[in-house]
Order: sequence, then C-alpha cells, then structure tokens
Amino acid sequence: MSVSLDPSIAERLKRNADGLIPAVAQQYDTGEVLMLAWMDDEALHRTLTTGRATYYSRSRGEHWVKGDTSGHVQYVKAVALDCDGDTVLVRVDQIGAACHTGDRTCFDADRLPVSGAQEAAQAE
Amino acid sequence: MSVSLDPSIAERLKRNADGLIPAVAQQYDTGEVLMLAWMDDEALHRTLTTGRATYYSRSRGEHWVKGDTSGHVQYVKAVALDCDGDTVLVRVDQIGAACHTGDRTCFDADRLPVSGAQEAAQAE
Repeated sequence: MSVSLDPSIAERLKRNADGLIPAVAQQYDTGEVLMLAWMDDEALHRTLTTGRATYYSRSRGEHWVKGDTSGHVQYVKAVALDCDGDTVLVRVDQIGAACHTGDRTCFDADRLPVSGAQEAAQAE
Repeated sequence: MSVSLDPSIAERLKRNADGLIPAVAQQYDTGEVLMLAWMDDEALHRTLTTGRATYYSRSRGEHWVKGDTSGHVQYVKAVALDCDGDTVLVRVDQIGAACHTGDRTCFDADRLPVSGAQEAAQAE
C-alpha cells in the first residue's frame, strides 16, 4: 500500500493499535453530526485530496469511499485535526442519507433516556 | 466497580477491546462538535442520570466528570446511540471552553489543507 499522506500531518496523528483514528462526519451547514467512521493514513490522504470522504472499514479491512455503493456521497468541505491528534472532524455536504438504514444520520433512531438534566439546568 | 447501566442499553453496546465506546460531544443549540472522548458503561450511566457528561480517561484509567477541574461543565441535554451501537452522541450545553487548550472546541486549532473540494462541488 502506498501511503502518501503529507508527512507533516502524519507525524501529528495518534493512531490506535490498529493504525486508525475516529472520524466524525458533520453536515457543514446545518451542523448535524452524521456518523462516526475510521480512517487510516491513506483514507485521510484521500479525504484531503479527492473531495470525497473516504474511510477504512474495520470489518471488511478495506477503504471505502462514502457513497460509492449507495450514492449517498459526502463532498468534503473542511477537515480539522483535534488538539490531541487522535480524532478528525470532517465537514461534508452529505447527499441523501448518511446512515445505511436510510436515516439522515446514524444517531436519529436510538435516543437514550436522560434523567438529571432538569436538575442540572436548574443549577445553572 | 458497580455498573448500573440499564441492561437494555448495555446489551446494545458494541465496545472496543478496552470496553469503551467513543462519545462525540456536541453543543446542543449551535451544533458545534466540541470534542471526542470515551465512555465505559459506568460513564454512560452517569451521563444519562446525573445531568453532567462523564467520560473514561484512557490515560489516567479513571472516570472524569467534564468540568470538575476546569469549571467547563457539560450539562447533558440529550444522548443518542448510533445505528451500530458503537458510538454515542452527547448533546450538551458547554460552559466555557470544551478544549483543555482554552479553545471553544478541540477542532478549532488545526485545520488540515483540503484540495479536490472544488472539483467535487463542480460535479454536483
């Protein structure tokens, strides 16, 4: 595999034991958090240089360009590395549904019950 | 450690080898992605029930309540589990800076150069 990520970026990354970092995909204009996926150096390189968000599939052990199968493309608008170098935020224009279930985002379907929020708000 | 996360939630979680899942913290009203941290079952339980976002520190090997040291508290507004059960999105009201550097978010300081976005936009 030829990895061509800019060395000045690569040296700042803190990868997990599998050589990956989590990538949070966010709709650039609405702010919706769409999904979380994983990138290796090559996926980040492609995301930065091709205009299309590209991830590494841990289950399939291969790169995937978001939307190549589904048509639900993510056009890359901006990418930021976090303060620790171990997470990237990818701002994209998401065409259609981000989630394989057909939902707009992967966080739409399973809201968890929150308690204690009322008390916290009152304490502000 | 007494873990008291609702079993019906716990059984849906897909944890990594260390028993953790990534948690994306988002400002509930502006949509800003603030930071990514990690949760074990107990951290998620506390986040769901105390009104304060609580994480698990991989470096220190302990739970931390966001803001306990810095005052930069996260009041929990909503929590959602993703479609795969391996990531949570925590919508919070972030007091002050989310980042330990003093930046509002952990993604403010290190924008990566993006090329190819122009071509993608034209292809739309």
